[in-house]
Amino acid sequence: MGRPDPWNGMGRRVHLHEVGPRDGLQIEPAFVPTEDKIALVDALSAAGFSKIEVTAFVSMKAIPALRDAEQVLRAVARRPGVVFAALVPDAAGAQRAVEAGADELNLVMSASESYNRANLRRRRDQSFQSLCEAAAIAQAANVRVNVSLSCVFGCPMEGDVADADVMHWCGRLIDKLGAGGITLCDTTGMAFPTQVARLTRAFGERWPATELTLHFHDTRGMGLADVLAALDAGANRFDASLGGLGGCPFAPGATGNVCSEDLVHALEWMGFDTRVDLARVLACAGHLPALVGHDVPSRPLKAGRRLDLRRQAAGLADV
Amino acid sequence: MGRPDPWNGMGRRVHLHEVGPRDGLQIEPAFVPTEDKIALVDALSAAGFSKIEVTAFVSMKAIPALRDAEQVLRAVARRPGVVFAALVPDAAGAQRAVEAGADELNLVMSASESYNRANLRRRRDQSFQSLCEAAAIAQAANVRVNVSLSCVFGCPMEGDVADADVMHWCGRLIDKLGAGGITLCDTTGMAFPTQVARLTRAFGERWPATELTLHFHDTRGMGLADVLAALDAGANRFDASLGGLGGCPFAPGATGNVCSEDLVHALEWMGFDTRVDLARVLACAGHLPALVGHDVPSRPLKAGRRLDLRRQAAGLADV
Repeated sequence: MGRPDPWNGMGRRVHLHEVGPRDGLQIEPAFVPTEDKIALVDALSAAGFSKIEVTAFVSMKAIPALRDAEQVLRAVARRPGVVFAALVPDAAGAQRAVEAGADELNLVMSASESYNRANLRRRRDQSFQSLCEAAAIAQAANVRVNVSLSCVFGCPMEGDVADADVMHWCGRLIDKLGAGGITLCDTTGMAFPTQVARLTRAFGERWPATELTLHFHDTRGMGLADVLAALDAGANRFDASLGGLGGCPFAPGATGNVCSEDLVHALEWMGFDTRVDLARVLACAGHLPALVGHDVPSRPLKAGRRLDLRRQAAGLADV
Repeated sequence: MGRPDPWNGMGRRVHLHEVGPRDGLQIEPAFVPTEDKIALVDALSAAGFSKIEVTAFVSMKAIPALRDAEQVLRAVARRPGVVFAALVPDAAGAQRAVEAGADELNLVMSASESYNRANLRRRRDQSFQSLCEAAAIAQAANVRVNVSLSCVFGCPMEGDVADADVMHWCGRLIDKLGAGGITLCDTTGMAFPTQVARLTRAFGERWPATELTLHFHDTRGMGLADVLAALDAGANRFDASLGGLGGCPFAPGATGNVCSEDLVHALEWMGFDTRVDLARVLACAGHLPALVGHDVPSRPLKAGRRLDLRRQAAGLADV
């Protein structure tokens, strides 16, 4: 027996984390009404995602789109088996998120010094200290702690980020901060499959007991290939964003979280078991344009599912 | 030793065929001037593609955009090692293409009966007879014959196409018509990696001496993953279209040939040897919007190459 076939899931379980309500909505100029956010999260948790990043507990001035974080997190319907997470940048945010009932805090810092300064306005070691305080608040309340490490596959300012740097920060976050999970983030769409397979394998060998998630952007068309490379290297958890909403305001052109329905559709055809109901996700995605006021880069919404074209084209052929 | 690592090219040679001048331009409403087409093909052959589908010898009424087929094919600069191919639907087209100096004729029919009727207005067995006449003309003139078999990975009217049907038609085309090469075409973006790996492997086992090319569309975001699955299954030739130009007029929403510069960029980072100069391809793609009068779905044109963002973002961070 050699390695498993990377092109056939053979029923293997893959966990998908929906980040659209936070990562997608945070940069939308139009405020999405609180009740619509709640309905969206409820529909997404009913669709079968393993984790939903519901909102962020950040300064209301910094991200006014998510100024209703408490209201949304308190109101969403809890569902067994679904983790309701919130992004948190510091101790103040951690306190608010814990009080509002987050199942998990997702803390953020960058593997790149330049990007950390540009995005979070502080050095990495300052971020680390601040995240340790936030983690302590969560841990005291028995709330899970995940850390999303950005620019792991490249930094728009520094270029390549050394694997050793990534492993160094993962080590501090797991061993010192006590993170139960790490998300390796391709913040600006610079990841490519060779690198993804290498880093994923290195992470799994060193920290087999830590929950590993991968977060990719499809900026350069490699999103799905990156996911498949990570799966082949042992990962089984992925962030994705409904409708492909969300990007990164600090990296020009770097829009394009991997689209949830694209990913569910592809993994389902390949025989992976995401437990996500594609029809429900497509129904959610179908509401997005009205919700955010613009078109979204969802491919199944535009082209249909793999066997959906049949009826449309048959209709055309009648002409 | 098990199978090779699918995520690391290790310098393996991959041949890319540029189909934009034919497959891309054929559906453009604005006529691209003959001299611009010639300049485009010359720039593409200088960029390192192994094969270029220069034009199509079809009815001028059916595809007015390519009514200058003879002029273009006669005028393009020949380059050692580059195959200058032309698409041909029948004997009349074959005669014209051979006289105009095509290195290779690319004949077309569909693996799906319904699609063949809708697209070519005849039954598959009628198409096959017609292609046999076209092939005989090429063979008498010592011109190579390739057949592009469409809807191999699914038909927008019939849904799934059985592997056995695909193998049956490949067999007739190779053994009876005498095709030296077969292109398995994902005409409407229905291919998925599991299926691609399976069909590619089956083809290679049965016809190891026949030149196999894969033609994918990125309609549902699986283009690159399909290419990687085919590479892992032994294929090493792929069609791609500059700027992602081209689609299929009979399949609504099914735009999106795999984009040449996306593919060159990804394969280069993964360590495959395409011998295509990405900078030259990007320069060609950069002229497309002016040439066709609209934006094109090229990702490297929009987001830059993997390490290009560095300067842009550094500039932004100065603000």
